[in-house]
Amino acid sequence: MEIEIATIGGYEEVGRQMTAVRAGSDVVIFDMGLNLSQVLIHDNVETERMHSLDLIDMGAIPDDRVMSDLEGDVQAIVPTHGHLDHIGAISKLAHRYNAPIVATPFTIELVKQQIEGEQKFGVENDLIKMEAGESMTIGDHGVELEFVNVTHSIIDAINPVLHTPEGAIVYGLDKRMDHSPVLEDPIDMKRFREIGREGEGVLCYIEDCTNANKKGRTPSERVAREHLRDVLYSMEDYDGGIVATTFSSHIARVKSLVEFAEDIGRQPVLLGRSMEKYSGTAERLDFVDFPSDLGMFGHRKSVDRTFKRIMNEGKEDYLPVVTGHQGEPRAMLTRMARGETPYELDDGDKVVFSARVIPEPTNEGQRYQAEKLLGMQGARVYDDIHVSGHLNQEGHYAMLDALQPQHIIPAHQDLKGLSGYVNLCESEGYRMGRDVHVSRNGNLIQLVD
Amino acid sequence: MEIEIATIGGYEEVGRQMTAVRAGSDVVIFDMGLNLSQVLIHDNVETERMHSLDLIDMGAIPDDRVMSDLEGDVQAIVPTHGHLDHIGAISKLAHRYNAPIVATPFTIELVKQQIEGEQKFGVENDLIKMEAGESMTIGDHGVELEFVNVTHSIIDAINPVLHTPEGAIVYGLDKRMDHSPVLEDPIDMKRFREIGREGEGVLCYIEDCTNANKKGRTPSERVAREHLRDVLYSMEDYDGGIVATTFSSHIARVKSLVEFAEDIGRQPVLLGRSMEKYSGTAERLDFVDFPSDLGMFGHRKSVDRTFKRIMNEGKEDYLPVVTGHQGEPRAMLTRMARGETPYELDDGDKVVFSARVIPEPTNEGQRYQAEKLLGMQGARVYDDIHVSGHLNQEGHYAMLDALQPQHIIPAHQDLKGLSGYVNLCESEGYRMGRDVHVSRNGNLIQLVD
Amino acid sequence: MEIEIATIGGYEEVGRQMTAVRAGSDVVIFDMGLNLSQVLIHDNVETERMHSLDLIDMGAIPDDRVMSDLEGDVQAIVPTHGHLDHIGAISKLAHRYNAPIVATPFTIELVKQQIEGEQKFGVENDLIKMEAGESMTIGDHGVELEFVNVTHSIIDAINPVLHTPEGAIVYGLDKRMDHSPVLEDPIDMKRFREIGREGEGVLCYIEDCTNANKKGRTPSERVAREHLRDVLYSMEDYDGGIVATTFSSHIARVKSLVEFAEDIGRQPVLLGRSMEKYSGTAERLDFVDFPSDLGMFGHRKSVDRTFKRIMNEGKEDYLPVVTGHQGEPRAMLTRMARGETPYELDDGDKVVFSARVIPEPTNEGQRYQAEKLLGMQGARVYDDIHVSGHLNQEGHYAMLDALQPQHIIPAHQDLKGLSGYVNLCESEGYRMGRDVHVSRNGNLIQLVD
Amino acid sequence: MEIEIATIGGYEEVGRQMTAVRAGSDVVIFDMGLNLSQVLIHDNVETERMHSLDLIDMGAIPDDRVMSDLEGDVQAIVPTHGHLDHIGAISKLAHRYNAPIVATPFTIELVKQQIEGEQKFGVENDLIKMEAGESMTIGDHGVELEFVNVTHSIIDAINPVLHTPEGAIVYGLDKRMDHSPVLEDPIDMKRFREIGREGEGVLCYIEDCTNANKKGRTPSERVAREHLRDVLYSMEDYDGGIVATTFSSHIARVKSLVEFAEDIGRQPVLLGRSMEKYSGTAERLDFVDFPSDLGMFGHRKSVDRTFKRIMNEGKEDYLPVVTGHQGEPRAMLTRMARGETPYELDDGDKVVFSARVIPEPTNEGQRYQAEKLLGMQGARVYDDIHVSGHLNQEGHYAMLDALQPQHIIPAHQDLKGLSGYVNLCESEGYRMGRDVHVSRNGNLIQLVD
Repeated sequence: MEIEIATIGGYEEVGRQMTAVRAGSDVVIFDMGLNLSQVLIHDNVETERMHSLDLIDMGAIPDDRVMSDLEGDVQAIVPTHGHLDHIGAISKLAHRYNAPIVATPFTIELVKQQIEGEQKFGVENDLIKMEAGESMTIGDHGVELEFVNVTHSIIDAINPVLHTPEGAIVYGLDKRMDHSPVLEDPIDMKRFREIGREGEGVLCYIEDCTNANKKGRTPSERVAREHLRDVLYSMEDYDGGIVATTFSSHIARVKSLVEFAEDIGRQPVLLGRSMEKYSGTAERLDFVDFPSDLGMFGHRKSVDRTFKRIMNEGKEDYLPVVTGHQGEPRAMLTRMARGETPYELDDGDKVVFSARVIPEPTNEGQRYQAEKLLGMQGARVYDDIHVSGHLNQEGHYAMLDALQPQHIIPAHQDLKGLSGYVNLCESEGYRMGRDVHVSRNGNLIQLVD
Repeated sequence: MEIEIATIGGYEEVGRQMTAVRAGSDVVIFDMGLNLSQVLIHDNVETERMHSLDLIDMGAIPDDRVMSDLEGDVQAIVPTHGHLDHIGAISKLAHRYNAPIVATPFTIELVKQQIEGEQKFGVENDLIKMEAGESMTIGDHGVELEFVNVTHSIIDAINPVLHTPEGAIVYGLDKRMDHSPVLEDPIDMKRFREIGREGEGVLCYIEDCTNANKKGRTPSERVAREHLRDVLYSMEDYDGGIVATTFSSHIARVKSLVEFAEDIGRQPVLLGRSMEKYSGTAERLDFVDFPSDLGMFGHRKSVDRTFKRIMNEGKEDYLPVVTGHQGEPRAMLTRMARGETPYELDDGDKVVFSARVIPEPTNEGQRYQAEKLLGMQGARVYDDIHVSGHLNQEGHYAMLDALQPQHIIPAHQDLKGLSGYVNLCESEGYRMGRDVHVSRNGNLIQLVD
Repeated sequence: MEIEIATIGGYEEVGRQMTAVRAGSDVVIFDMGLNLSQVLIHDNVETERMHSLDLIDMGAIPDDRVMSDLEGDVQAIVPTHGHLDHIGAISKLAHRYNAPIVATPFTIELVKQQIEGEQKFGVENDLIKMEAGESMTIGDHGVELEFVNVTHSIIDAINPVLHTPEGAIVYGLDKRMDHSPVLEDPIDMKRFREIGREGEGVLCYIEDCTNANKKGRTPSERVAREHLRDVLYSMEDYDGGIVATTFSSHIARVKSLVEFAEDIGRQPVLLGRSMEKYSGTAERLDFVDFPSDLGMFGHRKSVDRTFKRIMNEGKEDYLPVVTGHQGEPRAMLTRMARGETPYELDDGDKVVFSARVIPEPTNEGQRYQAEKLLGMQGARVYDDIHVSGHLNQEGHYAMLDALQPQHIIPAHQDLKGLSGYVNLCESEGYRMGRDVHVSRNGNLIQLVD
Repeated sequence: MEIEIATIGGYEEVGRQMTAVRAGSDVVIFDMGLNLSQVLIHDNVETERMHSLDLIDMGAIPDDRVMSDLEGDVQAIVPTHGHLDHIGAISKLAHRYNAPIVATPFTIELVKQQIEGEQKFGVENDLIKMEAGESMTIGDHGVELEFVNVTHSIIDAINPVLHTPEGAIVYGLDKRMDHSPVLEDPIDMKRFREIGREGEGVLCYIEDCTNANKKGRTPSERVAREHLRDVLYSMEDYDGGIVATTFSSHIARVKSLVEFAEDIGRQPVLLGRSMEKYSGTAERLDFVDFPSDLGMFGHRKSVDRTFKRIMNEGKEDYLPVVTGHQGEPRAMLTRMARGETPYELDDGDKVVFSARVIPEPTNEGQRYQAEKLLGMQGARVYDDIHVSGHLNQEGHYAMLDALQPQHIIPAHQDLKGLSGYVNLCESEGYRMGRDVHVSRNGNLIQLVD
């Protein structure tokens, strides 16, 4: 059976991930992501109203025109998890393919919300839920799609595996090797090891190279949780305002914040549109068990009403968890720092960033400004209470050891970013140009012909 | 009563700490430290045989000649803990003063060992042990010396407080605000708050500014421990060599390493002269409860014999904890990296640095070389599994809040390093030049005349 | 005669410089500057309409309330040169003092333009021009004010010297030690050496510590000019667009750009409001000899008309010199990068930044975005063709050698930034706290009482 | 005619450059270099006595075993210039090939000296001198070897071009695009443009990617010269010691140092083994015109004698130019800093580093230590008076424009280092995997079959 891989997006950058695998006449697409920074650099761009070709030209969504060179029928579109760089282009591209979108329940829910927000295209692909550990048949030629549970900075993340007569294709984006996550099960390394040893073994492994130049091991979420606990518990006696911010989609982190807020005698409340969206969805789908009275507010008016209530009842009784961890100019925390909300910061108030600045000068500049404005109000910052959601080098070694793939395709980075992964593979006996395929957006790689 | 403070060493650098406080006619000296980097930059220097004046000229030990301007009798020499930058000059300077050395039991033991190693001077000062929480009388004019328990990266650390009729002088070097240390009690913030409120309150606070330019809170040792646990547990299935290194004097960290080694089915063994010295002393004095069969070897021959045994019985059953976390050229780990010991590193072997590189180009160069040599042997590095032993800015705020001192003297940094602390004090209403005294080595500050 | 110095602004930051010297009953104020970054961090702030007290609260202009503690009459307000951080608060503060503003002709002209733009206060102080090398009498007690020629990144810069019976007070902001400037005379080191040796010598030297932590020597403008020549000459054969940007007030650099543009067969044209303002003023006052047909356009309409003409006649015949070297969002170059002007950038077009990013995350973020937008248009960037306008350490040594001051006051930096200068002074035998006076905004330093 | 390229060394690192080109049955080898850092990391290694296989295992010299896969006869070994990373393995590898070494006169002389120092192998290949601008026939099938003059940080550097019936192979290591070098002719861009347009054009261009991630243009040597002039002229009135250091092989820089020393009234003298070697050779071959009485001393005894003479006659009359710009522990400047030579440094003496630290922690650590030791003697450092010898991105654009090659092979960097060059090529219409060949050490690339 011919096996061909189209590396469509995310092979020259982080963002707008998209990869297609052809097994004989059946094609499966993994991820359709958005590179948000390519949108935000322009003023006043509303992606909801834009045409896909314009977004392709901007470098914001994958250029999927190479799909016409792939001779086969798309049988499924498979986003691995609900982050925008993996699902954000579905509303712009999925309608071109006569195929269902197959994903885990939480991811499906986020895809559904995104499609509903789309204003340019009518996306009517079927949405099929499949849980980690389950499989489904693809086409009529003995191809199976399996979801293996992985751990990442969002819940319900999986690595899809396409079982073909030539061996398995493992699509390895995005994960951390976490044996003690705060929510959900640990990464299913047992299953990866089985896949590496059963049948024809692994024909090809497509790897998340986000952290490929970082040595050592990405710590477990449990380490971030203990760090966060240490920080929040140290504030137990403080009788002023405490505010926290983190990635809205990072439900495990939000859960820790909510718990520790209660432990130190404060009522947590989630504020900001994306806070409400992700946590509300997670709670509705029973992924997380929040206190029954946990407030979540997204609309400006209800947020401001909440802030007024907090100011009236006493800041010392609340811990708002808000958007704005990167200092985004329009996010809640930045608005608080500018004095644009009813919540008033005072000397000595504490702001906890349970996040790291994504290292790029735009973010660094915005974050710097947000912290400076917070400081002008007297607030003090606790920074970097975070662990990455992506594998460092030791995780890559462990995956190679488990899967023992014949071929490897580094993804989710530019050439510089993935260079460390090539060296790592070569130290394990692989060789660039032979079985390590360094690709670019828009390339086809023929593995079996 | 006249109160005068002599800022003798460590006010223009990190290292060679020394401060004297005169209360009327009674003088107490806090710390007599060594700046090791000023020694090591020269080839072939043996401090044991050197005269103090030469070491003063080298900038290695405090220039205590200003003591002759201080009209009073030295009643005690009080090292706060056993790190070299606090006790390392005792063997060179203490014999000039007719006064006992007063310290906690572990510190006294380390001072004793140091004096025994001295070859130039005969140091015969009395050694007096006093526990955290205890007090003693100094001189005949109502001055008391109290030890308050603090948490640092070595055990049995205290902050000495000199109670005078004019108020307390709190000597705040070195500490972290740790409420969940792995060994010993948490920092005694309750006592600091009492001292801030009883009698005349705090006349002067001398603060450890090592991390004064770092925002947020230094994490608890428990956070480092969870990080270390995550790293070591992730290696549970590895059947080759694992080696760890950390600060020899950091008994809590060594204890965690020993525990986790056992948890993953390996026998820990401590190797290297200073490993044996600090851990052996800590165990003998009952500060830590190591497994009864824990091996500790310092002499070259016994180390090599141990390595041979490990190679014979199987590297997979052992976890050597060795010296060399900064890549010091002659330390155990660097020797292992150069292939100079019987322990042979293989592809995939793991080296855990439970330490951070002290950020200075000399260390960074040596560490880089050590890691490169380890890499040439196939070993892989896990880095930065550590938390600092010093207060970040939030700890400084908490101390000011607890002590409410009238005067503040920043210490343990150069002018650049302590600049953040001056800003911090001013944000709390103090003012440089009025009640914040930025000093230099060799100055006298008259607080009450 | 009593000599007292008030360190009013710029002693805890770079920006809003202001210092007053009292000699007996006569007071002279040096500089009244604006810290623009404290303004720009807020959205939609129009300083022209703001009250000085609000600007003081924002940290934007000096808090001159300490002036009421200075017993004497202000006889002159003396800005050293025309940069905003030295003259930008004159329109907000000068009217409070019944004293003329004394400055060199170019500086006076810029002060006049600023006062004309002010909309809140009526500033009616006399404006008196005095050239470098000239002197005037201050008050009736034998005090003289002299201007010594210095070299900086703006023309007509001087260091004022106040000759008192107790010795000279030399106000040393801002300068570079340039022996081969492109415009005007070299720095007048001969006169500084004379001042250091005549009469009572130098009582006090107030030094520009901007680069006090940088070793070596700030290169001459001639070095930047040769670098710029090398860059522009290398483009001689290019037949597309070339655009340059630099500091608008840096007339010598603009002059070099204009010359080299002509050398490579292109017509230079200066675009942007501040480009027109500074270069127009410099030409009108005969400080620089531009080609008679050199276009300078500041108003949006005339700029756009010029761009249209360039596009019609051919980009290859022009070299626009525009504002925007820091990536300021509303500056000309950023507008060009966003495609908001009629000038269209094409693949391979060249953009020359004859400037360095001022190292602060806000600037770095904005500059990054500007460069990214330029890159999206195909333009390519030549960066860092620049030399600083401020003394590095070797310049400081040379000034101390020339002036041999009794007292030194570091200025134009925060504590961290000036720390290197304190060390430098101490290496020359001075001592912090004795004759090196590290001050804060709002302090009085009594030198002679 | 079959054209095949073997990328042997320097494709995964900087250092140990080696590339072979097969045109039909004729093979030409370009460069045989040494990666010195792989040697120096080991203690006490003497390369002169080592076998090539051991040096290959150390990663110090190219692994030329792939040459056996290349079916053809080696007709010439062609080092491009005399730096060690291009000629340093000749003494270890050249004797395996029955072919002459063809190079420019200065390079040949350095090769000869190296072969004479070799103690393990007898290298007896013919040494053939060919000047820039000349050509020679290779084999019997219409292949020609031409040398094109380029500018680099050593004299007599060329780019060899192999003219084949299938087009030219241009081997582009190492160069800067200098139109105003201080010695010799500018780079021969006219000839490169001709080669790009004549006959079959350029089949393949192998490019020096050292600076491929740096934007803009590498400045001309003239810019470094003006910077150096500014620095040295500023010291004209100093009456103490001035010492300079630079790359020994950088004859143009040494020439500038010698000239400026004389301009400020000091007698230059070159000290250190490699100083004597390179400058002596350059002078003997008439590449540079030094003053007839310029002293050059390499042996320890004559150096020390010279230092004694300088101390006797007065440091103020001399300017020693010495080795040690990277702080190498055994170089002359480091020995001076340690007080191991008769030259005594005093307070205020000046040390000019006309070099940049090669950015690698080992160098940075050593340089830091050297500067610290110099500072302990009172000396003050002028740093970074240098320009790179390698093309930045704009030079790469210009070369592509001149040569318009069909194929491109990035060299002289690891994958991370060359990544910027791949992006650059793609922005010009090339494509990685199609006509941009990212290779690894030991690969064969078949261009025409």
